[in-house]
Amino acid sequence: MGVGRFIALEGIDGSGKSTQAAMLADALEARGHRVVRVREPGGTPLGEAIRGLLLDTPAGSMGAVAEACLFAASRAELVRRVVRPGVADGAWVVCDRFVGSSLAYQGVGRGLGVDVVTDVNRAAVDGCAPDVTVLIDVPVAEAAGRRCAGDDRIEAEGTGFQQRVADGYRAQAEGDARMVVVDGRGSPADVHARVLAAVDAAVASA
Amino acid sequence: MGVGRFIALEGIDGSGKSTQAAMLADALEARGHRVVRVREPGGTPLGEAIRGLLLDTPAGSMGAVAEACLFAASRAELVRRVVRPGVADGAWVVCDRFVGSSLAYQGVGRGLGVDVVTDVNRAAVDGCAPDVTVLIDVPVAEAAGRRCAGDDRIEAEGTGFQQRVADGYRAQAEGDARMVVVDGRGSPADVHARVLAAVDAAVASA
Repeated sequence: MGVGRFIALEGIDGSGKSTQAAMLADALEARGHRVVRVREPGGTPLGEAIRGLLLDTPAGSMGAVAEACLFAASRAELVRRVVRPGVADGAWVVCDRFVGSSLAYQGVGRGLGVDVVTDVNRAAVDGCAPDVTVLIDVPVAEAAGRRCAGDDRIEAEGTGFQQRVADGYRAQAEGDARMVVVDGRGSPADVHARVLAAVDAAVASA
Repeated sequence: MGVGRFIALEGIDGSGKSTQAAMLADALEARGHRVVRVREPGGTPLGEAIRGLLLDTPAGSMGAVAEACLFAASRAELVRRVVRPGVADGAWVVCDRFVGSSLAYQGVGRGLGVDVVTDVNRAAVDGCAPDVTVLIDVPVAEAAGRRCAGDDRIEAEGTGFQQRVADGYRAQAEGDARMVVVDGRGSPADVHARVLAAVDAAVASA
């Protein structure tokens, strides 16, 4: 049994993060790793139910603190039922969003503050940190053009909100040695090559 | 417009707390106060949806931290949409459970620790504390006899859990000058007289 890893992908809505998570998972499987691919919010039965609340609640019906607490609830389950058991069993867990999303979206985008969101999430995360977090960096205007019609409650917040989230992500990357920024512009295959190289470099240096 | 108040009722499952909340609300209305009566989890559209998740999720499918985060999410909405606006508008808000329940149930009953649960709830509560919290104190064995068939996930935890919760409540009362312990044994009318006297005394001394 090989050594398990925990890899998170982060980025604003429309950054191509979910496409890249799938391509990364396929590439890791092709190398013979057992891969567990999950998304936040979700990834457990309770997490998927919470996802429904988070994305389908009408705009204006959920405050920022409640939103942060719901993401934390989903995360608490994911850490304990999927990430930790998976890594302990030798799997490479590829997660589409983790606590970095809460810090960027609720902490900076919604203005709660990174410290408040860190407090809300401390028990949920319980010290479980990705071996590497890949931030897919795409200009806000370009990401907006990629998003489909039918945005959910959070995606529909507009470019001012997305710009704050992007700024929040960049500030995180500056303060987190295990967060790597990858240029998300170009074809999915080009971006994938960068993501895989970033993961390889991070794992090699760990 | 009179001065608004925030009154919370706490107690183990089967303590008669909900009956007492209704009787207290009626008595306060009979005195001419405008009363807003709510329950936790719930009291807002999002809170009621969260209530469904909390009470209907099968046993074993929700960890203690996720449970604490979900209660906090519901509470964040209740504070901002009901309690604060109500009190500011001169209403007496009577709440069946508040953060004291999380400290007793998740903090002590589930063993997360009072400090962890306090951290999870800090942003949700945001300094909003009841003017008085009435703890309806009933022996665990007596409360168990009062509960109906068809217990929800939390009520079904058994007497060992309920005893830990009761111990958690008593420890809170010892450390909180605004928490009053009322003997919950006897007829609903007898207990109601004690609850009303406790509220009157607390409000008079505030």
